[in-house]
Amino acid sequence: MEYKFSDRVSNLKPSAIREIFKYAADPEVVSLSAGNPSPDAFPIEAIAEISANVLKNDPISVLQYSVSEGYTPLRNHVKEYMKKEHNIGRDFDDILITTGAQQVMDLCSKALVNEGETIICEAPSFVGSLNTFRSYNAKLSGVTVESDGMNMEELEEKLSTIPNVKFIYTIPNFQNPSGVTMSLEKRKKMYELAKKYGVLIIEDNPYGDLRYSGENVPSIKSFDEDGIVIYAGSFSKVIAPGMRVAYCICPTTVFQKLVVCKQAGDVHTNIWSQYVCDEFMTKYNFNEHLAKLRKIYAAKADFCMDLLDKYCAPAITYHRIDGGLFIWCDLPKNVDMPEFCKLAVQNKVCVVPGNAFLTDENIECHSFRINFSTPTDEQLEKGIKILGELAGKICK
Amino acid sequence: MEYKFSDRVSNLKPSAIREIFKYAADPEVVSLSAGNPSPDAFPIEAIAEISANVLKNDPISVLQYSVSEGYTPLRNHVKEYMKKEHNIGRDFDDILITTGAQQVMDLCSKALVNEGETIICEAPSFVGSLNTFRSYNAKLSGVTVESDGMNMEELEEKLSTIPNVKFIYTIPNFQNPSGVTMSLEKRKKMYELAKKYGVLIIEDNPYGDLRYSGENVPSIKSFDEDGIVIYAGSFSKVIAPGMRVAYCICPTTVFQKLVVCKQAGDVHTNIWSQYVCDEFMTKYNFNEHLAKLRKIYAAKADFCMDLLDKYCAPAITYHRIDGGLFIWCDLPKNVDMPEFCKLAVQNKVCVVPGNAFLTDENIECHSFRINFSTPTDEQLEKGIKILGELAGKICK
Repeated sequence: MEYKFSDRVSNLKPSAIREIFKYAADPEVVSLSAGNPSPDAFPIEAIAEISANVLKNDPISVLQYSVSEGYTPLRNHVKEYMKKEHNIGRDFDDILITTGAQQVMDLCSKALVNEGETIICEAPSFVGSLNTFRSYNAKLSGVTVESDGMNMEELEEKLSTIPNVKFIYTIPNFQNPSGVTMSLEKRKKMYELAKKYGVLIIEDNPYGDLRYSGENVPSIKSFDEDGIVIYAGSFSKVIAPGMRVAYCICPTTVFQKLVVCKQAGDVHTNIWSQYVCDEFMTKYNFNEHLAKLRKIYAAKADFCMDLLDKYCAPAITYHRIDGGLFIWCDLPKNVDMPEFCKLAVQNKVCVVPGNAFLTDENIECHSFRINFSTPTDEQLEKGIKILGELAGKICK
Repeated sequence: MEYKFSDRVSNLKPSAIREIFKYAADPEVVSLSAGNPSPDAFPIEAIAEISANVLKNDPISVLQYSVSEGYTPLRNHVKEYMKKEHNIGRDFDDILITTGAQQVMDLCSKALVNEGETIICEAPSFVGSLNTFRSYNAKLSGVTVESDGMNMEELEEKLSTIPNVKFIYTIPNFQNPSGVTMSLEKRKKMYELAKKYGVLIIEDNPYGDLRYSGENVPSIKSFDEDGIVIYAGSFSKVIAPGMRVAYCICPTTVFQKLVVCKQAGDVHTNIWSQYVCDEFMTKYNFNEHLAKLRKIYAAKADFCMDLLDKYCAPAITYHRIDGGLFIWCDLPKNVDMPEFCKLAVQNKVCVVPGNAFLTDENIECHSFRINFSTPTDEQLEKGIKILGELAGKICK
């Protein structure tokens, strides 16, 4: 039989990162390509304890069907926590628990974007989200990321000329892949522009809690008095990604449509894991746990940047980071980046070619992304040393 | 701000059942409206044991990110099991683990159906799936369900006259909501017609393992030598729905597109619960567990049908069932069914109005659905007695 797929998926390809993930499974390959949290970061004992207790004392509550909105105590606790710690959420907002933050992008695309309408995103941006947007046949329009976030002139230019822009997608903290954090000034400007042009903002903040240096910058959602920001948060980087628990804080009118789409998508998120997240947030010292994570990642990031200085300078330059899991590396303009990444894989090091993160993969790009949270220190040293040797040879 | 939603969701309403679910939360209300498995049916101790062991011995494997296709051992074991027990799956097929079988419907709609194209389904059919199809702006065309399944003349009439039919959606065993099982003859006919008209079949089989009387009927997928059947199976009714683990066995070409959509949807299904399902299938006696479930549900179903005979005859008639979780009840033609269901809620019994399961809710319908797996025996007796009293009054 000749299968006929829908227009929206006909041109979709598997995510470049997910594909690279498969090479990375080869134990001989040093993978600097994943986005996995460090295994040291999982609160394993607490998870085991919470799980054992609930399965002993109230198993039905975590094994039976539940409501699409999410586990009510978790919704209430996250709402309180985000209000108190980050001034996120107003009376007009509500909170939906999702199966990973990827599902926030999926539900928002489905509920808000007709085929052919435009989503403005950072260039580069997280390929997982870009692929979700593509899977609804949305047009993507990328705005250059500078060292303090999106170029605001370019953003306004696009907002004022492109019809049917449905939302702006941004990762304001330690952006994946660039590592860049948007300045407060630009956050305010983005909010103003969105309001002016009647466009929503999706603020995706998986790494916000992983700041290890510098001052916290208020989230865009914290200014939101007009109901124009959809905020996505996640437990993937701060508890464990295998559980697939994330959330979305957004205006109730939007929330209601997202709930209907969620019912139609997977009915509800795994309730057992929602329960674990809730208990961990409320009965354990969540903020202390976050402090521990920041310590783990700060050490890893510093170690990684030192290695880049030691082995890869001057051929490879990079942007110093204050948080998150990724470092964006630049090759000299005369070096063929995809060729370099291929060579790296042949030499048993996996990185992600920068063009994977662009709205158009064919645009010339001289950067690649490395992740330092998943590999061990030994793997990091081995991998970065090889990258440095290759760069040294190729850049002669 | 005035929010502008996409065309596909503008007219979507929350699922009638999910909404009724909320009334059902009132402890004074006897809910016969859910589709929840019996709490007695969950293998709680095994789940706790498996979970404790893996969190002790190999926690990272169930807490870290995983691949979109699903946990490899689970995929292999389900594949083997379904081949051996049900002759399902050929060399051209592959298996995807999904977040509930609802996600199979979501991914298939996304990958296969353009807006405005048609899905043929049973009338009545499972409202959750219908809403998923609606959420992609698919047209629904319902074929009358008879006591042995879809009317095949009507099906062929539709296949031969409606352009752009993308698939036929069927629940062949103990259909939700009608309780009907499709005859072998009709299964073969449906397969033949699908092949003749170049249309796929989605065979949704959440209740197949819950047969408590009569002979097993081979699944449509078991005849599939042409790669035209997408089979959806689920652990929701046989292990626990709160875990949201299901699967889809389908031709590899379709599988590959579904994987890409799954990456874009929720990256992967909760890996911890996938691991639990796998261990439970392989290290415990899965078939013995299924036999235990059948015993639980057979007793409940018999009890419920006896109550209907005792309290509701002759005003309410119903279709005797051989499996599954639902009984489809008919009111006399002169009774206003929605009015009856409202009256029932006012008298603290919740049932689902039959028109909720139709492609067009405005079509006249004299039936309602009751579920017997969730309520206790006491609740069943109380609820059905009230229904009988109301029917007695109203049908005078």
